[in-house]
Amino acid sequence: MAEQTTTTTTVSNSPPLKRPREGDGISSVIPGWFSEISPMWPGEAHSLKVEKVLFQGKSDYQNVMVFQSATYGKVLVLDGVIQLTERDECAYQEMITHLPLCSIPNPKKVLVVGGGDGGVLREVARHASVEHIDICEIDKMVVDVSKEFFPNVAIGYEDPRVKLHIGDGVAFLKAAPEGSYDAVIVDSSDPIGPAQELFEKPFFESVAKALRPGGVVCTQAESIWLHMHIIEDIVANCRQVFKGSVNYAWTTVPTYPSGVIGFMLCSTEGPEVDFKNPINPIDENDNECKSVGPLKFYNREIHSAAFCLPSFAKKVIEAKARK
Amino acid sequence: MAEQTTTTTTVSNSPPLKRPREGDGISSVIPGWFSEISPMWPGEAHSLKVEKVLFQGKSDYQNVMVFQSATYGKVLVLDGVIQLTERDECAYQEMITHLPLCSIPNPKKVLVVGGGDGGVLREVARHASVEHIDICEIDKMVVDVSKEFFPNVAIGYEDPRVKLHIGDGVAFLKAAPEGSYDAVIVDSSDPIGPAQELFEKPFFESVAKALRPGGVVCTQAESIWLHMHIIEDIVANCRQVFKGSVNYAWTTVPTYPSGVIGFMLCSTEGPEVDFKNPINPIDENDNECKSVGPLKFYNREIHSAAFCLPSFAKKVIEAKARK
Repeated sequence: MAEQTTTTTTVSNSPPLKRPREGDGISSVIPGWFSEISPMWPGEAHSLKVEKVLFQGKSDYQNVMVFQSATYGKVLVLDGVIQLTERDECAYQEMITHLPLCSIPNPKKVLVVGGGDGGVLREVARHASVEHIDICEIDKMVVDVSKEFFPNVAIGYEDPRVKLHIGDGVAFLKAAPEGSYDAVIVDSSDPIGPAQELFEKPFFESVAKALRPGGVVCTQAESIWLHMHIIEDIVANCRQVFKGSVNYAWTTVPTYPSGVIGFMLCSTEGPEVDFKNPINPIDENDNECKSVGPLKFYNREIHSAAFCLPSFAKKVIEAKARK
Repeated sequence: MAEQTTTTTTVSNSPPLKRPREGDGISSVIPGWFSEISPMWPGEAHSLKVEKVLFQGKSDYQNVMVFQSATYGKVLVLDGVIQLTERDECAYQEMITHLPLCSIPNPKKVLVVGGGDGGVLREVARHASVEHIDICEIDKMVVDVSKEFFPNVAIGYEDPRVKLHIGDGVAFLKAAPEGSYDAVIVDSSDPIGPAQELFEKPFFESVAKALRPGGVVCTQAESIWLHMHIIEDIVANCRQVFKGSVNYAWTTVPTYPSGVIGFMLCSTEGPEVDFKNPINPIDENDNECKSVGPLKFYNREIHSAAFCLPSFAKKVIEAKARK
């Protein structure tokens, strides 16, 4: 969930600090704890105990912070919102990547929008069929910070198939040649603030145009417990734009609000894609990049299970999807 | 998750108060917020904004608190640990009940251990085949508080098939006639402190004895993200005691630590039980108790999906289950 985020905290333009300050989410709650407070999840906050703040800076787009937590390893925070922790990042990165890539045969060309930490790249690189991976991340500071503090995540950049573009994902997609990608993965932050465009119809139209027939997109799509109104809109937009299949999946990520995160998985008109029954398996012991270690979270069963929704969510999403 | 809990906070023996005090989880973190801090999940805390404390008391077993939260409805807290919120209790109650009851044909006699709030009873009562429901809850204050503040949960007690026993679940099961129940549901709190016995082999042996051949048990079994060492032990114990099948399932509950909760589902020797493929469906519009409203969370697909585990958990649990 890198790229643009909403600003709920204020940090001055001073150089990176080693000490937490008022207003960045740390000193507002228990001293020595980081608390995630946002209008996106009013009335609740998840807090992590801070051992040491390792980095604090302000890029052209957002406040960037890295801290060593007591029990979740190192944590990357953008504008006061947790993007990843070493302890649970596997769930998000593996699911947002393998849900789309295991659903199509032989993906060759993949675009990642956002995802500057490199974790999605690490997962895409497990697929031996992939020949080229473009990544368009707006904020170079996220890339640099990840390379410095999260080597097991940023290891994705070491793959020779990766080409990094620092810039706006919306513009990048508009300029992309038609029908050029097998898969687009949108690893974005929340849709209030600058990332809002990544949840709207014109962006989905650019994605659809850049995909080959029967190509797939997977976008971060919030929490069924917190954001059904946003999800409803995303589903409605996707249904209009993507003429193949339109699906919602979810998984557990303890350090994301409400403990879950969802994904929209859509395909363009062309060869049919049955996301619920993956045809391109990737197994622990059968992947390209031995150096990144085995899969920790993803497997074939949890792929199919991710599309099974609680009744309250199913009702809303299927109603929208049918229209 | 009622019944006995671990004591991490101290509250004096004074009568119920209307104002929060130091040490009960309210005033220790953000002013006006309740924070859940426990050695069971070190280094992290989930906090809810408190609109009003509705009840605070000390029973013979634990501290009992009810507050109106800003965004999760009313919240029941035992010894500083959230047991249920009106917003997400459906996930826990429906899953802990229908995972076992939808896996066997025509359950007739059911025992609930713990679960004093009545939510599991509400769900058991949806099954038309059920003739008798025993519930053994150690703490009468939990029952009374639920009836006063959570009428949509305690509605379970209104079913004429329910018989409430106030007492120790361990003793109740030891005294139960052999082979008398089709299903036992253990809605317990965490296994440090007095509830510890409910996670140990002698208790499982009592459960197995009280079940008919091919009978089923479902017990609260913690979080795959936080408690794999506890889960490993539970699985090992259950494998020794239950000669039918032994399975682990999980679901999302935002206000439980790490956002997930798991269940052990086991059957005794006898007619085979395939928990992953429910044979006794319960649909929204096809249940006994119209008065409690439709199912919000459970459906047939999410039943099967609940048994699909992330690779890191699958590896540990399947290794133990095979031994």
